[in-house]
Amino acid sequence: MPSRPGETLAVRLADIAAALGGELRGDGERLVERIGPLEAATPTTISFLAQARLKPLLATTAAGAVIVRDDVAPVVLARGASAVVVADPYLAFARLTRWWAARTRPLPAPGVHPSAYVAPGAQVHALASIGPFAVIEAHAVLAEHVVVGAHAVVGEGAEVGPGTQLRARSTFGQACRIGARGIVHSGAVIGADGFGFAPHEGRWEKIEQLGAVRIGDDVEIGANTCVDRGALDDTVIEDGVKLDNLIQIAHNVHIGAHTAMAGCVGVAGSARIGKHCTFGGAAMILGHLQIADHVHISAASVVMSSIMKPGQYSGVFPIDENGNWEKNAATLRQLHTLRTRLRALEKKSSP
Amino acid sequence: MPSRPGETLAVRLADIAAALGGELRGDGERLVERIGPLEAATPTTISFLAQARLKPLLATTAAGAVIVRDDVAPVVLARGASAVVVADPYLAFARLTRWWAARTRPLPAPGVHPSAYVAPGAQVHALASIGPFAVIEAHAVLAEHVVVGAHAVVGEGAEVGPGTQLRARSTFGQACRIGARGIVHSGAVIGADGFGFAPHEGRWEKIEQLGAVRIGDDVEIGANTCVDRGALDDTVIEDGVKLDNLIQIAHNVHIGAHTAMAGCVGVAGSARIGKHCTFGGAAMILGHLQIADHVHISAASVVMSSIMKPGQYSGVFPIDENGNWEKNAATLRQLHTLRTRLRALEKKSSP
Amino acid sequence: MPSRPGETLAVRLADIAAALGGELRGDGERLVERIGPLEAATPTTISFLAQARLKPLLATTAAGAVIVRDDVAPVVLARGASAVVVADPYLAFARLTRWWAARTRPLPAPGVHPSAYVAPGAQVHALASIGPFAVIEAHAVLAEHVVVGAHAVVGEGAEVGPGTQLRARSTFGQACRIGARGIVHSGAVIGADGFGFAPHEGRWEKIEQLGAVRIGDDVEIGANTCVDRGALDDTVIEDGVKLDNLIQIAHNVHIGAHTAMAGCVGVAGSARIGKHCTFGGAAMILGHLQIADHVHISAASVVMSSIMKPGQYSGVFPIDENGNWEKNAATLRQLHTLRTRLRALEKKSSP
Repeated sequence: MPSRPGETLAVRLADIAAALGGELRGDGERLVERIGPLEAATPTTISFLAQARLKPLLATTAAGAVIVRDDVAPVVLARGASAVVVADPYLAFARLTRWWAARTRPLPAPGVHPSAYVAPGAQVHALASIGPFAVIEAHAVLAEHVVVGAHAVVGEGAEVGPGTQLRARSTFGQACRIGARGIVHSGAVIGADGFGFAPHEGRWEKIEQLGAVRIGDDVEIGANTCVDRGALDDTVIEDGVKLDNLIQIAHNVHIGAHTAMAGCVGVAGSARIGKHCTFGGAAMILGHLQIADHVHISAASVVMSSIMKPGQYSGVFPIDENGNWEKNAATLRQLHTLRTRLRALEKKSSP
Repeated sequence: MPSRPGETLAVRLADIAAALGGELRGDGERLVERIGPLEAATPTTISFLAQARLKPLLATTAAGAVIVRDDVAPVVLARGASAVVVADPYLAFARLTRWWAARTRPLPAPGVHPSAYVAPGAQVHALASIGPFAVIEAHAVLAEHVVVGAHAVVGEGAEVGPGTQLRARSTFGQACRIGARGIVHSGAVIGADGFGFAPHEGRWEKIEQLGAVRIGDDVEIGANTCVDRGALDDTVIEDGVKLDNLIQIAHNVHIGAHTAMAGCVGVAGSARIGKHCTFGGAAMILGHLQIADHVHISAASVVMSSIMKPGQYSGVFPIDENGNWEKNAATLRQLHTLRTRLRALEKKSSP
Repeated sequence: MPSRPGETLAVRLADIAAALGGELRGDGERLVERIGPLEAATPTTISFLAQARLKPLLATTAAGAVIVRDDVAPVVLARGASAVVVADPYLAFARLTRWWAARTRPLPAPGVHPSAYVAPGAQVHALASIGPFAVIEAHAVLAEHVVVGAHAVVGEGAEVGPGTQLRARSTFGQACRIGARGIVHSGAVIGADGFGFAPHEGRWEKIEQLGAVRIGDDVEIGANTCVDRGALDDTVIEDGVKLDNLIQIAHNVHIGAHTAMAGCVGVAGSARIGKHCTFGGAAMILGHLQIADHVHISAASVVMSSIMKPGQYSGVFPIDENGNWEKNAATLRQLHTLRTRLRALEKKSSP
């Protein structure tokens, strides 16, 4: 029986080592009840060492077992703990969390909750799970093992691929599509209207957004994040993209595969972003520009023109004590003048 | 019969020209199945040319019909395509999208979905449409042609004007009012408490927010955008204002008519913003200040004091390769000192 | 009977003075129908004077009663109005709004709305109130006087303390806990997955987030704000913290007691923030850093390293007319070079 939240799980270390494909060194019968960081571990905790600079923590940790690289295992064993030896401890830790979650937070059973509303013409696979008060509009297609949480809304004609989860209170709009194994977190809104208006005599006339949103496989979309539908063509998010919470993706943006964005990022309309990029929190990308593959934008930096060369880019006003900032900010408003004065002095001094 | 999403619509070009009040040049019997950009058009696509700089695209587009100004029509006809001639092609395009959407995404039929909850004392017009699981609290008043989407909540005593749409999973709070033809997108929260507290012995004591939110006609409010209720008086949004997604409008803000704000903008309490202003994405406006009519704030710029003169205003740290940024940012922290040193040199050199 | 929204309340000034523990000077039988600011008051309005610089407004206000400090009362009485004398008028005003709200916006009656879904095994106190379509999952525990609004979702095993309100359309996730007298506003998502992935061969492998969110007493969390669950340990928000709308709190953040954050703030993972801090709107705090008690961060400022000293900190590019900004921003990209040139000149001039 899977345990309920709050219940403890107790598993043999040998089972964990086997699940991770790691080499067990030490006592395989040791019971593990928790995954935890080295600095807050107990004898029933399994921990991991992913960064060489944290190696000193091994001398003091109470962890009963540690996931480590081969060269570090003797240090663990010398402390009387057991080791699970793998090539990449951080990756093994990630996989262990998934193995653990599968045992402690099982997916809901297939079937449609009696309170849910499934419109005539919607196709819900027999192995999909539909939560309380969920709404599945007409012609929506939900594949096997799809999980729709409480109060989630799936619009008319939308398609949700195998194993994808639409968490409680998410909205997946009319005619939008998402592939396999995705997660759309609570409050996310996929497929609201893009922000498009034509100016006319001092007023704004709405441009209906006739496109949709097309999302690949293995995509995660954070809580309260918005991905707008395209104006004419679709907004596109390729495979493996990870979006954190409270992100705004405007209409007709294209995000390349395996790009990740931290919370509060904003991407304006029709920006085309490459593969394998990363964006720090609150980074802003203006519209209609292009970002190459493998570009990394620091948190809170604003991209105002296209970036065609891989690399790390930053642009943040350095924080300072308020009094210092005030003086420097005031001077900044005259910076161009200062440069002119400097030039004048240079000319004078080199006749 | 209106088509369902995914179904194609096929309309005569002559009907489109008539609907737009444009002059047809070429084959009015041509069937149009799609509106699309010039660069991705097919012979059954109608496209448009709104900017002179895009004129070269006419030489290569496969569009069967193009909406253009009079002077450009011959270029279209010479390519064997048809033209719809109008004074403002972008405006005609906007109107065409609305004509198209009315045929492909019809509004839901009037009536209250059997799963919705309408509290005793609420007034719902017979021509309003209330979706699955919507909640209409007591004394709310919904006018004709109002559309309330699935899971939307309309608070006690709220008033919603004719033709206004509260999309799925939006919240329209107690005693708030919105005029005619508005759209409140999914996840938007109108009328949460403003952020008001009195400090007392190191703690915060809540100031109940006794005002509401008052919204004019033709206002659009984006997905997951928040408009807080006023502390004593109302927060006010005038006619024709357009707010994109994930915007924060604090208590007692006043936004003048026809002002537009892109995604992620924040406006702090009691700011008073003029008419016909525009705000780029993630612009921030501090509290208790005033912005005149026709002010345009660039994306990611922070308004820290009142702006009384129309114009374009900006304030963003320019992004750069990380190494360059680090050097310049470090120097920026000494900028005031640099100015002092420059002055000293200037004095020395002009005795 | 409590009045409905829109209905007026009419109370004797003597009752207000008694409720505030203030000293009445003037006519205690005067009827008060509204709390309002001095500049928009009528004879049935009670107002307050909290800042000495606003004292001139007393000469022109039409308010029938004003909450003031002792020394100001004679000015009020001389105008023919009545005074309620207290030590801290702003605090008294805050308390009056709560007294007023209790009379005009009474809490819903205890009980479970017939449309709500309460899973078997959930514990709902008989004095709790559960709104339409609310979902209470298994093993959740709701204390006395808890109010769960329409469409709110309380996850499996979550605990909600006495008197706490989860407003309409909020999400309170699996195994999360909140203390007494809290408010979680509409659209807020407590306990979505933290943003954690291990890179592997150019892809991201999910790290399941096995922690939860632990929230103290008297905490308010704004509309559409997100607080993510911890990776291994919990995300922690201590007593008395106030978070405005659209804030992102990442996994394993720790926020000290009585700290307040304005709208659109972002806090990245594992940041540890002190007690009694304030953060202006859209301030951003990077991950894994520490902020001491009594630190105040200005709006839109980015904290990129730990701050161990109390004080006010700022870092915002000053806004300017666009043309000026362009020149100064361009020069800023050469600032380090300018410093080098200045040094060269200084050397030259001081041989």
